[in-house]
Amino acid sequence: MSLARAYLDYNASAPLTQDALAAASAALAFCGNASSVHHEGREARRIIEQARKDVAALVNADPSHVIFTSGATEAASMLLTPSWKMGAAPLHVSHLYVCAADHPCMLNGGHFATEQVTRIEVDADGLLRLDMLENALAAHDKVQGLPLVACHLANNETGVIQDSPAIAAVAKAHGALLVLDAVQAAGRIPLDMVALGADFLVLSAHKIGGPKGAGAIVSQGEVLTPVPLVKGGGQEKGHRAGTENVMAIAGFGAAARNALDNLVHADEVGVLRNRFEAAIVSRFNNAIIFGAQAPRLPNTLFFSVPGLKAETAQIAFDLDGVALSAGSACSSGKVGPSHVLAAMGVEGDLGALRVSIGCETGERELQAFEKVLDRLVKRHIPSQAAE
Amino acid sequence: MSLARAYLDYNASAPLTQDALAAASAALAFCGNASSVHHEGREARRIIEQARKDVAALVNADPSHVIFTSGATEAASMLLTPSWKMGAAPLHVSHLYVCAADHPCMLNGGHFATEQVTRIEVDADGLLRLDMLENALAAHDKVQGLPLVACHLANNETGVIQDSPAIAAVAKAHGALLVLDAVQAAGRIPLDMVALGADFLVLSAHKIGGPKGAGAIVSQGEVLTPVPLVKGGGQEKGHRAGTENVMAIAGFGAAARNALDNLVHADEVGVLRNRFEAAIVSRFNNAIIFGAQAPRLPNTLFFSVPGLKAETAQIAFDLDGVALSAGSACSSGKVGPSHVLAAMGVEGDLGALRVSIGCETGERELQAFEKVLDRLVKRHIPSQAAE
Repeated sequence: MSLARAYLDYNASAPLTQDALAAASAALAFCGNASSVHHEGREARRIIEQARKDVAALVNADPSHVIFTSGATEAASMLLTPSWKMGAAPLHVSHLYVCAADHPCMLNGGHFATEQVTRIEVDADGLLRLDMLENALAAHDKVQGLPLVACHLANNETGVIQDSPAIAAVAKAHGALLVLDAVQAAGRIPLDMVALGADFLVLSAHKIGGPKGAGAIVSQGEVLTPVPLVKGGGQEKGHRAGTENVMAIAGFGAAARNALDNLVHADEVGVLRNRFEAAIVSRFNNAIIFGAQAPRLPNTLFFSVPGLKAETAQIAFDLDGVALSAGSACSSGKVGPSHVLAAMGVEGDLGALRVSIGCETGERELQAFEKVLDRLVKRHIPSQAAE
Repeated sequence: MSLARAYLDYNASAPLTQDALAAASAALAFCGNASSVHHEGREARRIIEQARKDVAALVNADPSHVIFTSGATEAASMLLTPSWKMGAAPLHVSHLYVCAADHPCMLNGGHFATEQVTRIEVDADGLLRLDMLENALAAHDKVQGLPLVACHLANNETGVIQDSPAIAAVAKAHGALLVLDAVQAAGRIPLDMVALGADFLVLSAHKIGGPKGAGAIVSQGEVLTPVPLVKGGGQEKGHRAGTENVMAIAGFGAAARNALDNLVHADEVGVLRNRFEAAIVSRFNNAIIFGAQAPRLPNTLFFSVPGLKAETAQIAFDLDGVALSAGSACSSGKVGPSHVLAAMGVEGDLGALRVSIGCETGERELQAFEKVLDRLVKRHIPSQAAE
């Protein structure tokens, strides 16, 4: 990325931290297969096991409860399956309850058939309707199999943070398994595996400053496991076959260490985010900040300006050296209406812009953002006023 | 990897080529999500599409027929499924026929139930018994669904090359789909998608000098597709969700270019491999070279010396700075009896050692290997003679 550009799209992919770059580069040049018993293989194994500890520490979990995958989407695909095991015994999950504002990797139901998936609504602030989850789970037919609840912890578009202990309490009361997508929450708010109350967390390396190509499933224990998705050799205790991506895992571990250390700066990130927000509202007094009434990640800002088409504005920002997102970046180059906003009951199709920042973001980026905002005020507001 | 060491385990994981290292390093430092529409995202997309062309060129296929995955094991897991589509229509595959000498990612049957998998034997040279495949397919009940044949093109342990056009002819004659695991063949022998006759090839980046974390499915066309394994966003035309691993894919592309260029050196690699072979046979006249009577990869040498325990010898090589493999490196640090040798009817449990080399291997590695061999002669042969 050119240094001259202002990158405000951390929720799509965060820049590598220096430590992650160093760890990944060192492992990249290294040729061992972690399953080989020679020196090169053992060194690869050592790197992976250190990273397992680092990733576990980020969510205060047991390192032996971390399974590395190729990313969060694979992790979600592995967990969202009807086929489970309790120890060696098969266990059937008959229905999936997802949140209507979930990321597509959970929203689309994973390996459940369409009729086995129920979407639970969110309120106008983007928070899961606990009453609706309660009703849905109360109506679940346990004779058919267990219920599985899957929900994001923090929303990738709005940054809205779900009340995970409350969701966990409802799930537990009805004997449901709970999978939390903690991809956007990790490294931005403190996470504790026990306090969250989930059976499984899903994490991604490249959203916390690690390389693309690594993700993880973190579990409460080792008894309850989904049937493997990627099958072959016995890697990851038989849960995930395939030669381990040492490079990405090494970078994931380093990024997890950095993310844990950087949590002390979360308030500063929040202050800066609020200045981005103020920059918008002071120029466009009709701007709407989504999820502003709910607990939100300190780094995320999702907004609409009536009269300002998001896609056009996104291109203007990009041409002026500011990378931000119109909606999320979860499929191939498509910019469509946001299903998150639709779930929150937002009407109209102007779209929205997302600013997502990190510890490295500073005055330079804010000034670049404000400069483009000023140009947009000149270009777009007159035409809106004339309408 | 220390320069002083001799790395003779290319089939477990080949060292990165210089071009792959450069391409991967450049992409590693780059933070774009290939689904983002801004500059950073488009640059990531450009890198991926160039790599798609390079990988396609290695097997003379159409770039639009390449699907990137997190590795060959994921690719095999995706293909070895009963659930397929022909265009938009569901298509059921009812039985899988694998080769008894396949890599575990195919041998274990992927997502087929145990009773849906038949292992076809190999002969004493390690070649698939075409008569047995013929008989098995003739007995297949097409009313239940299509038959799927999965076989390696070159064996990871012995290097034995299967007669893929003959296998394809048998498969075609019985209306079976054919998946070829070309992981070890790629970059070592010329490959042509049409001449091979397979419906699908499986490739891995890190076996041809690319980074770990990327693999590919190459198909003959676009009509017949397995139901996605990793589900979520619309990446890879909907076949494989999840943020693309730009770094690994960039390195994969560069390694594929190098591999294609280096095919002209295959004969030289074969000459060097034969010198390793001669070094063994001249010291241990009872040595057995597995698969020596069959067509073999030029870079692979799998051997046993009666009286010399492979695991012990492997440790001795490692301590003296030579990395080679006792059997394959396909699961977590386990060194067990080789299922490939068992399938070839080799008796006894001494195990075998694998030397696998590349274009970069030279005199230094051969000399290091010979030095350890000389020590092994002194240490082990007397005790054997005394038995």
